Amino acid sequence: MEKIRIGIVGYGNLGKGAEKAVKYNPDFELVKIFAVQTPNQLEEMKEYIGKIDIMLLCIGSATDLPQQTPEIAKMFNTVDTFDTHAKIPEYFGAVDAAARQSDKLSMISTGWDPGLFSIMRVMMEAAVPAGKTYTFWGRGVSQGHSEAMRRLPGVLDAREYTIPVEATLEEVRKGDMKEYTPRQMHKRDCFVVAEAGADLAALEKQIVTMPNYFEPYETTVTFMDMESFQKEHSSLPHGGFVIRSGVTGEGSNKELMEFCVKLDCNPEFTSSVMLSFCRAAWRLYKDGRRGAVTVFDVPIGYLSAKNSESLRESSL
Amino acid sequence: MEKIRIGIVGYGNLGKGAEKAVKYNPDFELVKIFAVQTPNQLEEMKEYIGKIDIMLLCIGSATDLPQQTPEIAKMFNTVDTFDTHAKIPEYFGAVDAAARQSDKLSMISTGWDPGLFSIMRVMMEAAVPAGKTYTFWGRGVSQGHSEAMRRLPGVLDAREYTIPVEATLEEVRKGDMKEYTPRQMHKRDCFVVAEAGADLAALEKQIVTMPNYFEPYETTVTFMDMESFQKEHSSLPHGGFVIRSGVTGEGSNKELMEFCVKLDCNPEFTSSVMLSFCRAAWRLYKDGRRGAVTVFDVPIGYLSAKNSESLRESSL
Repeated sequence: MEKIRIGIVGYGNLGKGAEKAVKYNPDFELVKIFAVQTPNQLEEMKEYIGKIDIMLLCIGSATDLPQQTPEIAKMFNTVDTFDTHAKIPEYFGAVDAAARQSDKLSMISTGWDPGLFSIMRVMMEAAVPAGKTYTFWGRGVSQGHSEAMRRLPGVLDAREYTIPVEATLEEVRKGDMKEYTPRQMHKRDCFVVAEAGADLAALEKQIVTMPNYFEPYETTVTFMDMESFQKEHSSLPHGGFVIRSGVTGEGSNKELMEFCVKLDCNPEFTSSVMLSFCRAAWRLYKDGRRGAVTVFDVPIGYLSAKNSESLRESSL
Repeated sequence: MEKIRIGIVGYGNLGKGAEKAVKYNPDFELVKIFAVQTPNQLEEMKEYIGKIDIMLLCIGSATDLPQQTPEIAKMFNTVDTFDTHAKIPEYFGAVDAAARQSDKLSMISTGWDPGLFSIMRVMMEAAVPAGKTYTFWGRGVSQGHSEAMRRLPGVLDAREYTIPVEATLEEVRKGDMKEYTPRQMHKRDCFVVAEAGADLAALEKQIVTMPNYFEPYETTVTFMDMESFQKEHSSLPHGGFVIRSGVTGEGSNKELMEFCVKLDCNPEFTSSVMLSFCRAAWRLYKDGRRGAVTVFDVPIGYLSAKNSESLRESSL
């Protein structure tokens, strides 16, 4: 079996997850982990041209991916998990130009949201055009919200859990097709370790009134000591729901579709999903596709290590 | 906007659903319904060559599709809902040969199972290779099981509902990854109108012991009068679940994915889904694809009436 030779760029939770995911995917060969971001990283990578088929970019969406993907795409096929939804068109354009210049392919925004959830949103909307799609996240850790608290003076560590509002989930499942405010859809549970002597009441107020991050939601703050915090809040669970509720026929028959994930370890799952898109990216590349592509360009069969014939027999 | 010109072959529940689904999909134009299967149907169809882009085959899997699809594929692109899982390889081969002969494309086995559920099985297995996938159906009407009862002497009408065993669903969702017997996964609720004077106890025994259909399951039989039967059991609800439970990392982190549908009207939903695959089939055809294809060959974006750019903005 010809193996897909990959490199991993970045060695945080996602990169470590990708490394472990390779052992469940025997059609991949991990050639090199580029763990530390050094100034001469690009020079180092250059030596791997011809030895690595695809680079898995396991680095952050805030600044790392926008800066580095176009550079890396000039040398390698890439797969990433870029998830800044509002900046996707701009990012797509920059990566597309770089990959076309090098005659490579870059698949952006894989993982589960964007990624599997994106596929669900498109598939469900196409299946029942007269309807409404809802995305709920949680219960799970939001790194962005946790980081926002950690930046506050007096906070030693903090973790936020995004939680879907159960009553709204149930209403959506009944097919009401209403509009909901952020507060009606999600609540936020925060666990905070404060410096000794910090004004907890003031800190709590600072958190729950923080614009965009917490103010639009019902937010609870629980202060705790570092030992309990590390014991109870070191794992990275997550989850989420895509639900489409719609009608068919004369408009009176309700049809509901729901996709959900419930994850013990968000980065391990995300990187495992990423590997399946990496397989698809390689096949698209071998088909002659070039430039930036998304999960919407992937024929689902390309995600699987099985060939078309055995997929038809086993899974159709 | 250039419209996709379709014909509908067969005018039962599925064909009627497809006719209604067109009004929710303004990029389609319904040219002709071939309602009645006549001996000279193929001659009649011939007149529509060049006027119909794709034929939606809304006819049965037992005999109609295997007989007619290869003939129709010699004239038109086709989309069908062939669902006899065991015969898919043979059917695929016959349709592929016919479509290649006419330089057309035939997409087989669309709908929700096979169809959306097939996509889920492949996507989920690829996302978490170390795991197990379960498919549950119901609560919903099985036409095959209803028909099996109607064939019994003394039965005027009958309807069977397939129901997932709730306790097993819950166990699967906990991530146990066990093997289950048919009886552990589904039960069957039957509603029967018997002829006056029929031996109900004997009839019930005949039903619950019927091999393959009812014997492997916990089956309940309720006799009722025709009026109540027609009032309570004339709709065609259905539903189902694809669940994959697996592990990542060192094997201790559980990851769960679930897709489910809950349908007021199975044939309306199925034909609505069919239309989205019809759109994808047309795009694959315009890309130059020929012969038989399946839902696994469909880039998800092709299901949508939106173009790639707007999909990236709205749904990624």
